[in-house]
Amino acid sequence: MTIAHRPAPLSTQDLTGQLIIAGERVTGSGSAIHGIDPTIGGRLLPAYAHGNETDVVRATAAAATAFGPYRATSSEDRAHFLSTIADNLDAATEVLVERAVAETGLPAARITGEVGRTSGQLRLFASVLREGSWHGARIDPARPDRTPLPRADIRQRKIPLGPVAVFGASNFPLAFSVAGGDTASALAAGCPVVVKAHDAHPGTSELVGRLITDAIAATGMPAGTFSLLYGTGRELGIALVTDPRIKAVGFTGSRSGGTALVAAAASRPEPIPVYAEMSSINPVFPLDGALRDDAAGLGRAFVASLTMGSGQFCTNPGLVIAVDGPGLDTFVAAAAEAISSSTPTPMLTPGIAASYASGVDEFVSAADVLARSEESTGPNTCRPALFGTDAETFLASETLQQEIFGSSSLVVRCRDLQQVREVTAELEGQLTATVHAADSDHENARGLLEALELKAGRILFNGWPTGVEVGHAMVHGGPYPSTSDSRTTSVGSLAIERFLRPVAYQDVPAALLPQPIADGNPEHIWRRVDGELIRD
Amino acid sequence: MTIAHRPAPLSTQDLTGQLIIAGERVTGSGSAIHGIDPTIGGRLLPAYAHGNETDVVRATAAAATAFGPYRATSSEDRAHFLSTIADNLDAATEVLVERAVAETGLPAARITGEVGRTSGQLRLFASVLREGSWHGARIDPARPDRTPLPRADIRQRKIPLGPVAVFGASNFPLAFSVAGGDTASALAAGCPVVVKAHDAHPGTSELVGRLITDAIAATGMPAGTFSLLYGTGRELGIALVTDPRIKAVGFTGSRSGGTALVAAAASRPEPIPVYAEMSSINPVFPLDGALRDDAAGLGRAFVASLTMGSGQFCTNPGLVIAVDGPGLDTFVAAAAEAISSSTPTPMLTPGIAASYASGVDEFVSAADVLARSEESTGPNTCRPALFGTDAETFLASETLQQEIFGSSSLVVRCRDLQQVREVTAELEGQLTATVHAADSDHENARGLLEALELKAGRILFNGWPTGVEVGHAMVHGGPYPSTSDSRTTSVGSLAIERFLRPVAYQDVPAALLPQPIADGNPEHIWRRVDGELIRD
Repeated sequence: MTIAHRPAPLSTQDLTGQLIIAGERVTGSGSAIHGIDPTIGGRLLPAYAHGNETDVVRATAAAATAFGPYRATSSEDRAHFLSTIADNLDAATEVLVERAVAETGLPAARITGEVGRTSGQLRLFASVLREGSWHGARIDPARPDRTPLPRADIRQRKIPLGPVAVFGASNFPLAFSVAGGDTASALAAGCPVVVKAHDAHPGTSELVGRLITDAIAATGMPAGTFSLLYGTGRELGIALVTDPRIKAVGFTGSRSGGTALVAAAASRPEPIPVYAEMSSINPVFPLDGALRDDAAGLGRAFVASLTMGSGQFCTNPGLVIAVDGPGLDTFVAAAAEAISSSTPTPMLTPGIAASYASGVDEFVSAADVLARSEESTGPNTCRPALFGTDAETFLASETLQQEIFGSSSLVVRCRDLQQVREVTAELEGQLTATVHAADSDHENARGLLEALELKAGRILFNGWPTGVEVGHAMVHGGPYPSTSDSRTTSVGSLAIERFLRPVAYQDVPAALLPQPIADGNPEHIWRRVDGELIRD
Repeated sequence: MTIAHRPAPLSTQDLTGQLIIAGERVTGSGSAIHGIDPTIGGRLLPAYAHGNETDVVRATAAAATAFGPYRATSSEDRAHFLSTIADNLDAATEVLVERAVAETGLPAARITGEVGRTSGQLRLFASVLREGSWHGARIDPARPDRTPLPRADIRQRKIPLGPVAVFGASNFPLAFSVAGGDTASALAAGCPVVVKAHDAHPGTSELVGRLITDAIAATGMPAGTFSLLYGTGRELGIALVTDPRIKAVGFTGSRSGGTALVAAAASRPEPIPVYAEMSSINPVFPLDGALRDDAAGLGRAFVASLTMGSGQFCTNPGLVIAVDGPGLDTFVAAAAEAISSSTPTPMLTPGIAASYASGVDEFVSAADVLARSEESTGPNTCRPALFGTDAETFLASETLQQEIFGSSSLVVRCRDLQQVREVTAELEGQLTATVHAADSDHENARGLLEALELKAGRILFNGWPTGVEVGHAMVHGGPYPSTSDSRTTSVGSLAIERFLRPVAYQDVPAALLPQPIADGNPEHIWRRVDGELIRD
């Protein structure tokens, strides 16, 4: 019976503005910040006082203490824990939507969907735990009769790295924040998590932190399995990443923020992996046949993807690369008309809105302004913008190759497909690349696909990159600087591998073998025996 | 028919002292080095002139050009290529043994075994390619009827990172050198390889480089798939790692060399992964019951492992941690007697012999000398040494926690098991940890095993860490500083994953899908479909 643990339903009135360290509420001693309603520029209560290095040490020490018992829990126990967090989130949808909408200016429908996406992600990792392949179990049985030397019995499984620091992102207050993909995959792997909340949604972070803490109590997990800290990236964030008890880092945010964490992690006496998802302009390639089929429709759909959520997506289509001609003219005309008639919408924070405005100003000096939406009288809005240039100007301009976070995109006109390939070859690493191709484009698309594989983590055809499906096959990652580590993904079930490492067991007595590699396959999981996958 | 490509049998008379760049022989313009016969200190012909940055650029440019066609080859074609290298190595065993013995002072039987291990490793990766799981194929089929939004068709596979730089190690002139595990796994992944040969065995490196080049010609692989350079780590090595065309690095060697490459790779505009296998002292834990059973036999077997190959193994047992008592006394007495009666043997190079001697001198001032072998009159020999100390002294001494490369080990006497655990907790990351345990030790061993999982990549019971089996379950890796990246292994079939990254394909037309994730599973490989492993 877990009734004793069942918490009262949360309400935004309950918010205390405190840190959560191993289940305890701790009042920060640093400067106070507030959630801001960006649609009116108004402060939301309560105040959140930042923590300090002492809080970091308390949280990481608790995580280190929890690590042993937490990693010793069974897959089933951790699956139940993750599912309980998911249930708690779903049950709190109403209050989460109320607070997250107030703190982000995002529509209620979007936040409601994001709650479901976040709980769904937790349940996906619960299913990954139950399926068992995550153990990476391998067995090479002994061959005592082998000549010239007998072969020992060697078995392999993966174990968690240790406590993980997670940095919440501004743009997904749930799905890439306190209980987002980094937290879910690290907890699934058996790693305690210390989250640094994003100052853009402190109340939402507290609500989610309490729901996780409730789930820890309800499922009997060690208290130090989760802590939630508030503070600046430069101080508390660096203290967290350089704490010797932290063994890996998950981050979604800006290129400058991500590279600072990567540098801090590399400078440690014991360097650790940092999974930073940073910067991407997500090129779109409408090919000749696709433009002939419906250039205007493509242009309008492009703007719908570009302006959704004020363009505040890592996968926002910030670049269109295409061969000049009447098809592209029609595409641009339709896109420009859609941009012109679009409405400015609030951005997540005053800082993000200011960065957007200054980024657009730089583009105004470097490229042609094809369209802008009407002016806005509200605070912190994104006023969608469409720019145009030619390939030579694009390749010569550092400015035009930078990401603008928000609804701004640049159309690069190329002389021919050869020039499209030249521009593609110069692109930095990307989260996504999108091709629009009719059947008649397939031969050209094939060559482009090969080039794009080396530039992006996900390649889409005839769709739009915004919207990242959470599943087994998704890759939300890509070559530098879209991420700091292209060998993995931050969305989808493969993400659990970021927090694991293999260990080999040689001639370990049967009584001491971990269950996943024990004789008789007691967990009934897929294992690679002498190289053959079997589930005996 | 490939008869036209069949090369004449190699002989050491054929050695030219040249670099091999994309199949062409290139005479270096830098300072010349020679192979040295360490048993007599004599120079071996020919001279090898070091290459320069121009050679690096030629090799990496050729690798970049080869990358497209090479990664487009089928798994079967690459498997055939790897098998052909293996066949070439086996056919050249005699000349390889002749030259490698001359250059390293290692026994002919050991080198003969190492040729077989190296060709076996290449064939292992050929089998991995044919089995097909390396693709990491995942398919989440479209769900057009899903509400509120339809699901796209998303598929995932892994692709190679790009050209890889491999640094040959001194201590395995074949298995961790030009055609060693790093090269084999990178070539299997579809990555062209540029090797920097180790100056300790330039002639062996040239022989192997020519055998690989012959295999490239015989199997029709692109010429730039492989190049072999000579040069210093500080100049040519850094130029190679910072070349923008290189996308990953494999290294086996010293901690200072590895950390220099890691720093160079991190400082690039586009940082790249470095897999450096660096430093390990490989603690051994003889427990109470095991010592009661046969302390003297354990002591002798320990010295046999310690002195094999002059102790020049990454997994050499350089540390013994045990509870004080009569059992440990007997173990030490037997080990000391075995050390005293052992014979000094030549080391790989004069530099390694000098480092060994100075490392031992430092230990002489920091610990008790329990035994040394007789003096040697030959050049460049390793004179085995056994030291002893107590736990407090060990924990307080930086010197005693360092690796000495060669036959030297330190016995740390602990008051009790609690102190064994305290010493263990302070150890740096290790490639291996070894427990000797009788049945009566199992309860104590269980707790130790959990602690050792966090410290080492491989845990052995009742054996010795020297000897690294090449198979599917092996882990030759471990926490920092044993390697720079604990999430992987440099030996065994999992090593291929170091050179791959996942790419997702969303709604890509069937005609354009790569074979491993094409409809109908044309390669008949294991694929994860909606999370379920199937081979349809």
